[in-house]
Amino acid sequence: MNCTAAHAMLNAALAEAHRMNVSVCIAIVDAAAWPVAFLRMDNTILGAIDIANKKARTAVLFQMDSAEFAEIAHPNAHAYTLENTNGGLISFGGGLVLKDADGTVVGAIGVSGASTADDIAIATVAARTLNA
Amino acid sequence: MNCTAAHAMLNAALAEAHRMNVSVCIAIVDAAAWPVAFLRMDNTILGAIDIANKKARTAVLFQMDSAEFAEIAHPNAHAYTLENTNGGLISFGGGLVLKDADGTVVGAIGVSGASTADDIAIATVAARTLNA
Amino acid sequence: MNCTAAHAMLNAALAEAHRMNVSVCIAIVDAAAWPVAFLRMDNTILGAIDIANKKARTAVLFQMDSAEFAEIAHPNAHAYTLENTNGGLISFGGGLVLKDADGTVVGAIGVSGASTADDIAIATVAARTLNA
Amino acid sequence: MNCTAAHAMLNAALAEAHRMNVSVCIAIVDAAAWPVAFLRMDNTILGAIDIANKKARTAVLFQMDSAEFAEIAHPNAHAYTLENTNGGLISFGGGLVLKDADGTVVGAIGVSGASTADDIAIATVAARTLNA
Repeated sequence: MNCTAAHAMLNAALAEAHRMNVSVCIAIVDAAAWPVAFLRMDNTILGAIDIANKKARTAVLFQMDSAEFAEIAHPNAHAYTLENTNGGLISFGGGLVLKDADGTVVGAIGVSGASTADDIAIATVAARTLNA
Repeated sequence: MNCTAAHAMLNAALAEAHRMNVSVCIAIVDAAAWPVAFLRMDNTILGAIDIANKKARTAVLFQMDSAEFAEIAHPNAHAYTLENTNGGLISFGGGLVLKDADGTVVGAIGVSGASTADDIAIATVAARTLNA
Repeated sequence: MNCTAAHAMLNAALAEAHRMNVSVCIAIVDAAAWPVAFLRMDNTILGAIDIANKKARTAVLFQMDSAEFAEIAHPNAHAYTLENTNGGLISFGGGLVLKDADGTVVGAIGVSGASTADDIAIATVAARTLNA
Repeated sequence: MNCTAAHAMLNAALAEAHRMNVSVCIAIVDAAAWPVAFLRMDNTILGAIDIANKKARTAVLFQMDSAEFAEIAHPNAHAYTLENTNGGLISFGGGLVLKDADGTVVGAIGVSGASTADDIAIATVAARTLNA
């Protein structure tokens, strides 16, 4: 995940959130889960900062979207407590794993602050810029 | 949340707890979740200190009472694991978000140490002093 | 350190800070270093919250004022690194150990936000209410 | 510190770092020390992520640049150990407190990854966009 690509994703997410008229935090991490880019829009609830970061972290650490992660890391699923590892992970949508054209994981994006469905929609639009 | 208002809320909560004959911790934070005022009554269990702080923190970070937060941050609700973000949040009552007369969030109060119903009752009495 | 005594100290410190026209945080802990009372005045720098707490914590954990603690816990003093124990301690003034009339340690007060000399002066005025 | 202003500062810092041919992390926080924007340029050492954040945090929590903070929070200065409060602060340059045209603190910027002199230069260029 280079800086130029992350910056472009940040701008795409920001534009989409403005278009949808919602306020979110956007966090982008590299393949090793280190932060690359972050932005908090005006009027986003403060609690969303940590959630956006953790959604991105969850997606890259397990190479799956946080909505998929929720299916295994849940009191009623087979890997209950998995969500409590790695400093706390997120078992709902809004974190997307990012792959290059060859399918190699290059990082992840996490969006938080709107409804879960909107968070996913914004992250999806941003992710599309990656291999465009 | 200015110091004078927080001090008045602290005193109102203390008076109500004395009237109800229970012992609690009272924590008041500003709109950015920074502590403004805190008091622990005699004979309050030590575990209540962290809980009162986290109840207030939960309410302000998500701009909803901790009892409402419980409805989304719960193993059976759609945002399970939300309660594990932001250093640990509280999914039961006793944290109230505080708004000024215009509806702007100015902070939150958390009460802990008695029953949840009593904690909520004390926080509610204290919150009423804010725009009185 | 009971709640009534802590509350009276808080009020005395607040009055003295107003009189001196400075803004501070005031933290009072019991003999086991658990928080009893805290107040942050308007316009106090946010960094002072943690410092006031750590000054009180330092004083009670080592049963000496934080200004005395500084003489031993310093790169040039015999117990260098002592200041890095117990979650981080404070090697400058503003934390006072509190004793009852019999000399038993009952807690500590920490004041931060003004100059160190003013912080000490405010804490001293507040401490005097204890056995008055 | 609104999102638009922070985004503009991020872009200005990025452009200046490119011009100087160095790689840095840029962190921008609001007046309550909550993150607003962050960017890590390609080839920046990973250790700089935390430093950029802590430089910004130091500047806003004490309402002074981190280079000024160094003069009081140092083994040979009067408030030694101050640097160990608030989760760890930074006693060298690269964190600048940001004020609006009226002198009100609105946040801070931290830059890390190049030499301290270069970090300060980049932060200074970015800060100038604020009230331009």
